Amino acid sequence: MITQKEITLPPFKRGMHLITGLIEKELGKLPETGMLNLFVKHTSAALTINENCDPEVRTDMDAFMDRLIPDNYPHFRHTQEGNDDMPSHIKTSIFSTSLNIPITNGKLNMGIWQGIYFCEFRDNGRRRRILVTIWE
Amino acid sequence: MITQKEITLPPFKRGMHLITGLIEKELGKLPETGMLNLFVKHTSAALTINENCDPEVRTDMDAFMDRLIPDNYPHFRHTQEGNDDMPSHIKTSIFSTSLNIPITNGKLNMGIWQGIYFCEFRDNGRRRRILVTIWE
Amino acid sequence: MITQKEITLPPFKRGMHLITGLIEKELGKLPETGMLNLFVKHTSAALTINENCDPEVRTDMDAFMDRLIPDNYPHFRHTQEGNDDMPSHIKTSIFSTSLNIPITNGKLNMGIWQGIYFCEFRDNGRRRRILVTIWE
Repeated sequence: MITQKEITLPPFKRGMHLITGLIEKELGKLPETGMLNLFVKHTSAALTINENCDPEVRTDMDAFMDRLIPDNYPHFRHTQEGNDDMPSHIKTSIFSTSLNIPITNGKLNMGIWQGIYFCEFRDNGRRRRILVTIWE
Repeated sequence: MITQKEITLPPFKRGMHLITGLIEKELGKLPETGMLNLFVKHTSAALTINENCDPEVRTDMDAFMDRLIPDNYPHFRHTQEGNDDMPSHIKTSIFSTSLNIPITNGKLNMGIWQGIYFCEFRDNGRRRRILVTIWE
Repeated sequence: MITQKEITLPPFKRGMHLITGLIEKELGKLPETGMLNLFVKHTSAALTINENCDPEVRTDMDAFMDRLIPDNYPHFRHTQEGNDDMPSHIKTSIFSTSLNIPITNGKLNMGIWQGIYFCEFRDNGRRRRILVTIWE
């Protein structure tokens, strides 16, 4: 059985944000055994799973990606939507548009240090939509 | 219910190619609610989801990846299959071998600016095979 | 139908390791048609699919990632768990926490050159857990 739901995130600042709690609240009751897919319906924001404890992991990861793909990279030609647009597209493809997370005993079955990051790559990202799919 | 189908792409030049329409044509009628998985059966080509409008997003993304992992990178030892082979393997792992795309109301439920990119990383990629899986 | 199983890998040295055979052995009998998801329950190790033949592909890929995100990168602030920790987190998000692999005719339906890599990014990674999910 497959069920779906679209959720809209609050606007987030540019950077990486731990949204495990927010997602769990939106999901409500989960099946005993199943799989969750989260799919971001945008091309300048992404999802990833990483360390849920020290906030500096998020700022270090974000800063590293900003140095790897700088807003002032001189070779981009797609620049009419702002200097942060083309880097956002590349970061989105390097990270993930969608995540799969197993559901076991009615809970997201991640490791104890794992959390869901929402990665907002634009300076002014507005509200982003995520399509939730649950298999059971 | 799970159904599968293998499709063979036409040969593509090295670079990133928007194949949403080609894939939709191959898929035919979709279930009302479900999930699509596309799995590339190769290690030097990938799939990603990104901006479906300005072709310069594709050329900028491709050019960025070529500068990040250049064909003439001096430290590779796996070079007997050509200078473009080892970079192709790394790009494949940085991008995605498979994609999940939700199906809603009988259509791929992507955002309005999202499209499916086929990433051909070899100079002479020939015809590539994709295994399609649909859950409903 | 969805079934799940948690497996524990033997400890692997830092680097990329071909684990297709190990995973197939753990899986046992597979359904005729289905999908496999492998989900690593850690934030400093990852999975990817790549070339299963020449071991130098694995060492080249690993060495490339080590140069791209060096242990001695001067800008990281999250350093209290060792110089290899923050690079491990970033590599994990660039590669994949989970993989989907189609099952056809009772076998993993990968291309002839494709294999499953386990990527251990820490110097002392210990035993890692993977949650296996199979849809049929």
